[in-house]
Amino acid sequence: MLKEKVLKTIKKFQLIPKGSKVLVALSGGPDSVTLLHVLLSLKEELQIEVFAAHLNHMLRGEESERDERFVKELCKKWNVPLLTGRVNVKEISKGRNVEAVARDVRYKFLNEKLKEIDGNLIATGHTASDLLETVLLNLAKGAGVKGLRGFLPKRDRIVRPLFEVTREEVEAYVKEKGLPFVVDSSNLSTEYERNLLRLKVVPVLKEINPSVETAVLRTTEILRDVEEFLELSVEPLLREFLKDGKFCIPLTEFKKLHDALKKELITRAYRALTGESLSYENVSSVISLLRKEGYKEVELSKGFIAYRDQRELCIQRKEEGDVKPFYFEVRELPAKVDTPVGTLFFEKDRGKPVVSYEEFKEKGIIIRSRKPGDRLIFRRFSKPLKKFLIEKKVPAKERDKLPIVISGDRIIWIPGLYRAYINDTHVSYVGVRFEKSDSKGFDTGREDKAESSGTC
Amino acid sequence: MLKEKVLKTIKKFQLIPKGSKVLVALSGGPDSVTLLHVLLSLKEELQIEVFAAHLNHMLRGEESERDERFVKELCKKWNVPLLTGRVNVKEISKGRNVEAVARDVRYKFLNEKLKEIDGNLIATGHTASDLLETVLLNLAKGAGVKGLRGFLPKRDRIVRPLFEVTREEVEAYVKEKGLPFVVDSSNLSTEYERNLLRLKVVPVLKEINPSVETAVLRTTEILRDVEEFLELSVEPLLREFLKDGKFCIPLTEFKKLHDALKKELITRAYRALTGESLSYENVSSVISLLRKEGYKEVELSKGFIAYRDQRELCIQRKEEGDVKPFYFEVRELPAKVDTPVGTLFFEKDRGKPVVSYEEFKEKGIIIRSRKPGDRLIFRRFSKPLKKFLIEKKVPAKERDKLPIVISGDRIIWIPGLYRAYINDTHVSYVGVRFEKSDSKGFDTGREDKAESSGTC
Repeated sequence: MLKEKVLKTIKKFQLIPKGSKVLVALSGGPDSVTLLHVLLSLKEELQIEVFAAHLNHMLRGEESERDERFVKELCKKWNVPLLTGRVNVKEISKGRNVEAVARDVRYKFLNEKLKEIDGNLIATGHTASDLLETVLLNLAKGAGVKGLRGFLPKRDRIVRPLFEVTREEVEAYVKEKGLPFVVDSSNLSTEYERNLLRLKVVPVLKEINPSVETAVLRTTEILRDVEEFLELSVEPLLREFLKDGKFCIPLTEFKKLHDALKKELITRAYRALTGESLSYENVSSVISLLRKEGYKEVELSKGFIAYRDQRELCIQRKEEGDVKPFYFEVRELPAKVDTPVGTLFFEKDRGKPVVSYEEFKEKGIIIRSRKPGDRLIFRRFSKPLKKFLIEKKVPAKERDKLPIVISGDRIIWIPGLYRAYINDTHVSYVGVRFEKSDSKGFDTGREDKAESSGTC
Repeated sequence: MLKEKVLKTIKKFQLIPKGSKVLVALSGGPDSVTLLHVLLSLKEELQIEVFAAHLNHMLRGEESERDERFVKELCKKWNVPLLTGRVNVKEISKGRNVEAVARDVRYKFLNEKLKEIDGNLIATGHTASDLLETVLLNLAKGAGVKGLRGFLPKRDRIVRPLFEVTREEVEAYVKEKGLPFVVDSSNLSTEYERNLLRLKVVPVLKEINPSVETAVLRTTEILRDVEEFLELSVEPLLREFLKDGKFCIPLTEFKKLHDALKKELITRAYRALTGESLSYENVSSVISLLRKEGYKEVELSKGFIAYRDQRELCIQRKEEGDVKPFYFEVRELPAKVDTPVGTLFFEKDRGKPVVSYEEFKEKGIIIRSRKPGDRLIFRRFSKPLKKFLIEKKVPAKERDKLPIVISGDRIIWIPGLYRAYINDTHVSYVGVRFEKSDSKGFDTGREDKAESSGTC
């Protein structure tokens, strides 16, 4: 009965192709012993080779030694090649969460042993009951679609043939076949939360629905589909806009997306950049950047930031003193533009003239950070912007913060440093004003007086 | 504090527009009393009118009367117009689930009273704690995205201003303001499952995460987004292929969809047709029709069926004795086609010739149910198919089951009834054979002998 069910699971999820070399992660508990027993009984039918691996985490003193002895004896009796290892997890965890370290060390060990036997799959004894507990735990702690779908029947090289089997079915199988197993007393201490759920919550859910594991298996199946669909929906955008260690998407593209996809895309971009999950709060704060105008940024975890300017939304590593390139466009007057060093105001016929109104109506004004190749035009000559900034003794790290104001392909204003010549016979013009921000930007307090107008 | 939180919820979800007439569903319990109190205190700020309604379900004898008296007194004291009603729910439920009947009756009552006062919104006292319980209950019983997202902050005319408030916060508010309320003793009997969750499960989840309600609010927000995205993704298909009381989508269109959308589409089509949810099993069995070849059908609930032929997947009401239109195409030989009356075999140069092989290679063969306008071509005349079938005394209800075999726009074969003339000088031909199915289809046992060949 259980054997047939496991076989069905293996076929349904295509867990184990013919000719596989499967390494069973064998703790010695009822789940992994059952898994090993079932896989051995399916050896011919599946045409597979079965190995076992056991890592002694040395966390429970004599009990850990007992488990290792038990597993060795069992594999000898069942004639299964066993690979063992020993790691003093407490010693290497150094204050980090022991459970998490043990998990990492275990999977590293399993992958090494898999390589040693030239195998292709690691099989673990996770059951539908574990899945139910995982889903409940994630729900309690806060989860999205990924959290609610729990672990997968197959992921990379790890397969879970007992995925659709309940703990009760394992217990019945162990009893029926008279299989030996060990009990991990740490179940009652280290995995405290999971045990709370197992002992106090699941029995109540079973009173409401005796087949609660089946219900949750179906729910997770639906959610796996939904997750995949969301993933496929944002995948082309991720491929297009994730490059050079940063993710930058044009706002026009991003705003077209449904909210569900916006969140999915941000989450996946961050995961692709950092390998970590982005918290709900961080996802929300990135999304909320869209409601702002001008340049805004938020700090994320892992030393990353998200920022938006008028053109793009980006996620990238924060570099101290570094300023993200920015870009704004002004088409209507009056206009106000926030930049890293302060606020620029543009008005018709008020303030210092920088361009004729006629030209503005035709070309608009662009405010952006400097680019290689930028040149300033004076009456009788032109000069690379870089050279000009060096002459003006603007510190290198401040140069990227400067707002470069452009009409067409001509620089018309750099607050405090440069203003292009404008023929004042023009009836109407665009006038500018600059207000330094409080932040420690480049000191442009010399505004106007020190301004190297294009007229000089 | 609570007042501000409720105001934030109202704004965030745009629950109550200015100038609204709000009818508060007032049971007299702490949630609804708090809701009424908060809305009254926000009356000026929101520019709303507040009414209350109370339905006496007459389910708890004197306690029901006490609640009604309490609510009347409270509304008098607070100067709130109150609309009341009395329904003997037990009497009208007649064996149906009393809780469900009470719910239906209550919402009907609230909508009637809303009309009476010419109001636009019904406000209910559902809290984030109720949401958590709903999500857990649905998870335990089996849920998809819709079940896991629980109830909505706003649906049609119903708004839930306490959506983001926990039961603890309500209790603190009631205590702080010294608000009177009644306790519904039936909480401990009629809503048995919900109380199991409230008393036994939620406290454990709170031990794992004291802010579990906040966690679940976020999860449901994510799922509401995902649900809306799925809905929007299938909506154009629903609009295009749902008509005349049935849903029929070309297989070519359907097979293009991601599994998540296939399921969503089936679920929504069924709901649009019946107003009910389709079970997970039924959704799966509809999807599994795709893996079959030829004509197949499955029974759904509510007297509906789903079927597929070579061209379409349909969901429609099952009508006794009725046969769904069917359509198959044959392009390769040999071929086998299942029809409602039996199986048709097509082979090259074997069986009764119906069309030259040359013509077949060019046009293929179509096997479909009859259509208005179908005509049979004989040597010197043609005749409406309908007239022919009447002459042949084929019962009206059997006529739609007949497979009409067509080449180009010419009927070439109706098993047991008609076979078109074929010039046997053709070197190669398509030959046919018919095997009656065991089912009680039209009796085509007269095959060949009685066949009105086009040669007559």
